[in-house]
Amino acid sequence: MGRKQFVVNGFSAAAGAAGIKKKGGPDLALIVSDRPCAAAGVFTTNSVKAAPVLVSMERAAAGTARCILANSGNANACTGAAGLAAALRAGEAAAGALGIDPGEVLLASTGVIGAPLNAALIERAMPTLAGNLREDGLVDAAGAIMTTDSFPKMSVFDGEAGGRSYRIAGIAKGAGMIMPRMATMLCFVISDARISSRDLREALPRAAGSTFNRITVDGDTSTNDTVLILANGAAGNPDMDRKALEGFEAGLTTVLGDLARMVVKDGEGATKVVDVEVRGALSAEQAERAARTVANSSLVKTAFYGQDPNWGRIIAALGRAGIDMNEELVDIRIDSVQIVSGGMTLGVEAEAEGAERMKNPEFSVVVDLHLGRFSDRMLTCDLTHDYVSINADYRT
Amino acid sequence: MGRKQFVVNGFSAAAGAAGIKKKGGPDLALIVSDRPCAAAGVFTTNSVKAAPVLVSMERAAAGTARCILANSGNANACTGAAGLAAALRAGEAAAGALGIDPGEVLLASTGVIGAPLNAALIERAMPTLAGNLREDGLVDAAGAIMTTDSFPKMSVFDGEAGGRSYRIAGIAKGAGMIMPRMATMLCFVISDARISSRDLREALPRAAGSTFNRITVDGDTSTNDTVLILANGAAGNPDMDRKALEGFEAGLTTVLGDLARMVVKDGEGATKVVDVEVRGALSAEQAERAARTVANSSLVKTAFYGQDPNWGRIIAALGRAGIDMNEELVDIRIDSVQIVSGGMTLGVEAEAEGAERMKNPEFSVVVDLHLGRFSDRMLTCDLTHDYVSINADYRT
Repeated sequence: MGRKQFVVNGFSAAAGAAGIKKKGGPDLALIVSDRPCAAAGVFTTNSVKAAPVLVSMERAAAGTARCILANSGNANACTGAAGLAAALRAGEAAAGALGIDPGEVLLASTGVIGAPLNAALIERAMPTLAGNLREDGLVDAAGAIMTTDSFPKMSVFDGEAGGRSYRIAGIAKGAGMIMPRMATMLCFVISDARISSRDLREALPRAAGSTFNRITVDGDTSTNDTVLILANGAAGNPDMDRKALEGFEAGLTTVLGDLARMVVKDGEGATKVVDVEVRGALSAEQAERAARTVANSSLVKTAFYGQDPNWGRIIAALGRAGIDMNEELVDIRIDSVQIVSGGMTLGVEAEAEGAERMKNPEFSVVVDLHLGRFSDRMLTCDLTHDYVSINADYRT
Repeated sequence: MGRKQFVVNGFSAAAGAAGIKKKGGPDLALIVSDRPCAAAGVFTTNSVKAAPVLVSMERAAAGTARCILANSGNANACTGAAGLAAALRAGEAAAGALGIDPGEVLLASTGVIGAPLNAALIERAMPTLAGNLREDGLVDAAGAIMTTDSFPKMSVFDGEAGGRSYRIAGIAKGAGMIMPRMATMLCFVISDARISSRDLREALPRAAGSTFNRITVDGDTSTNDTVLILANGAAGNPDMDRKALEGFEAGLTTVLGDLARMVVKDGEGATKVVDVEVRGALSAEQAERAARTVANSSLVKTAFYGQDPNWGRIIAALGRAGIDMNEELVDIRIDSVQIVSGGMTLGVEAEAEGAERMKNPEFSVVVDLHLGRFSDRMLTCDLTHDYVSINADYRT
C-alpha cells in the first residue's frame, strides 16, 4: 500500500529523531488534526500504569482532543513524579508548537521500563517535528513507534455514512510484553468520520475486545498498552444512525483486527500465527479462559514452533485452566484436519496430516469441549529461539 | 552420595528396560517393601488425570500399600478405557511377580501424553525386574523414571523417634511441564519409620505444599504429577508423639525441598535457579499469586537468562498479577543488593552490582510490597534457547 492510501481528511503526521533511542533513528511520532476531534481510548489493565497512560486516560475521558504525541525507546513507566512531569512537559511542547491547548494532546510511550525520560530531548526536537507534518505522514509515524518490531503495522478501511464516504486508518506497534487486556502496546486510529465521542467510546472497547484483547505473544501485559482514536468529522456526514454506527464499528473492528494480527505475526521471534479457538464451553468466561491458557502455554507454543501436533499438551493446558471439561468429549482439529476425537488420538496418519498443516505460517487449532454453546478465540504465535535471544539481550 | 546411603530397612528397588522408551534404556522402576506400609499420596490438580493417577489416588486413599511401579516413556494420559486397563494390567503383573495383592501396588507414569501404553511390554519385563530387586536399588529406580531429566534426583534424611533412628529417602523426576499445584511429576519417598497412615496423610500435603507446590519450570501443570510415600515401620520406633511427628514432617520437608530444588535446577534448558520471594503482601493468597506471576513471566525468565536486572519486567508482572499494590512502595533486591526503592531504580551502579549477582547459577529476587505482613516464594529457572530446542523436538 502506498502512502496515499493512509491519508485521512484533515489529519497530518510526522516522525522525528529526538535521541531517545540509544541507537538513534526515529523515536517520535506526531499525529495532528486541523480541527477538534471526538476522542476515545482504551488502556492497559496492568495496575502499574506508565505516566503517559495516566495522562491520556484523563484527557481521553474528556471526549475531545486534537493530537497524539508518542515516543519509542522509553516507556516512561515506573518513573514516579519525575516521569509524570516529563510527560506533561512533552505534551506542552507539542501544544506550543501547534498552537493548541495542552489538554488536547494525547500521549503514549513505549520502550524500556524504569529509565527516566528526558523531556528536554523532546522539547528540542519539537520544532522540526511539527515542521515536518504532512498529510501522508502516517506511514512515518508508524515507523517511529517501532521498538523490536520488524515492520510497521498499518490498516485502512473506507466506509460510507449518510451518502458521505469516510476513512478509518490505524497504526500499531507490538512485538513483546504482549497480552493486552484492554489494548495492545500502542495503536492509534484516525478517522474523518463525523461521530460523537459518546459513540466512539462505545464502539472502541467492543472493537478492541474482540481484536487486541484476544491476542498474546508472551502472556505479559504491558504497563503502556494504549489504543487511541481521533475522529475529526471532516467527511461531513450527517449524524450517524444505528446502521451507520454499526458500519463504523465493523470498519473499526476490521482495522483493529488487521493490526492485532500484524502484532502477533511480528511477535518477538515468531514464525507462526496460530488462531486458537475453543468451542462448546459452558460459559463465555470459560471459553476465554480455556483459549487464553492454551494460547499462553510455553509447551504448546514450542510445539507450534516444532510443527508438532502435540495435542497432549493442549489437553494438559485445558486441564489446568480451571474450566469444566470432560476429557472424553474433547475434539481437536488443526485447520480442517481432526486429530483428536473424544479425548483420544485419531492415529498416526491423522497426526501426520495435522503436522503438514502446521508447516504453514498461519493455521488454526480448534478445540471443541462439547459441553455448552460458548466459544472464544485467541491469536497467538510460537515460542522460538529468537524470542529468547531478543529478550535475553534487550537491555544489555 | 553412594548407593548405601539410600538403603532403607525393609525396602528393595530395581530398574528395568521394557522397551517403552523408543530409544531404549531403563524405563521401569519398582520399589517394594517386605511388609505392609502406611501410604499416602498427593496428586495433580489438573482436571485431566492420567490413568495411573486415578488408580493410585484410589489405592493411596486406603492408607496401606506395599509397592510402587512406575514407567517412563509414556504418560498413559488421555488414553481412555484402554489406558486404564493397561494400568491395571501393569499393576497385576507386579502383584503376581511379588505375590502380593494388586490393591497394594501404587502406579505412576511419565512421558508422552496420548500414546497408548502397551501393557504386554511391562508384563514381559516383570520377572526380570522383580528378580533384580536389591536393597540398594533406589539409585537405579531414580534413573529409570527420567525423561528429559539430565540427572537422577535423590535425597535422604536420618531422624530419630522414641530412641530409634529411622530414614526417609526420596527420588523424583522433573524437567518439563512443571508447575505442580499439589505435587510434581513424580516423587517417591520411602521410610522405615513407624507412623500411621493418618499422620502421613497430614504431613505429606503440608510438606509438598511448601516445596513441590512452590516451584515452576514453565507454568504447565502436568496430568501425571504424583508424590507417593510408603512407611513400613521397620525402624521399630514406638508410637510417634507430637514432637516425633514434627521431626518426621521436618525431615520429610527437607527431602521434598531438596528434590524440588533439583527439579528446578534440572528444568528443561535451565541455567539458573532463582528464588522469587514476595514480602509485604496483604494476604497469603496475594503473596502466592504475586510470586507465581513473576516466577512464570517469560520476560522475567529470559532476563534471568540474560543476567539482566530488568526490574521493570518484574514490576510489570506484579502489576498484572491482580493483587493490591502501590508501585511507589515497591522495593526489589537481588540477593543482598537493592536495585529498586519506592518503585524506582537506585541507579546504574546498583543495577550493575545486581547484574554481577545474576552471574551466579543460583540467586534470589526479593520483592517487598510494603503493604502487609504476608510473604511467599516460588523457585523458578530461566527460559533459555535450550528450553525451546528441547520442546520443539520432544516428540518428532
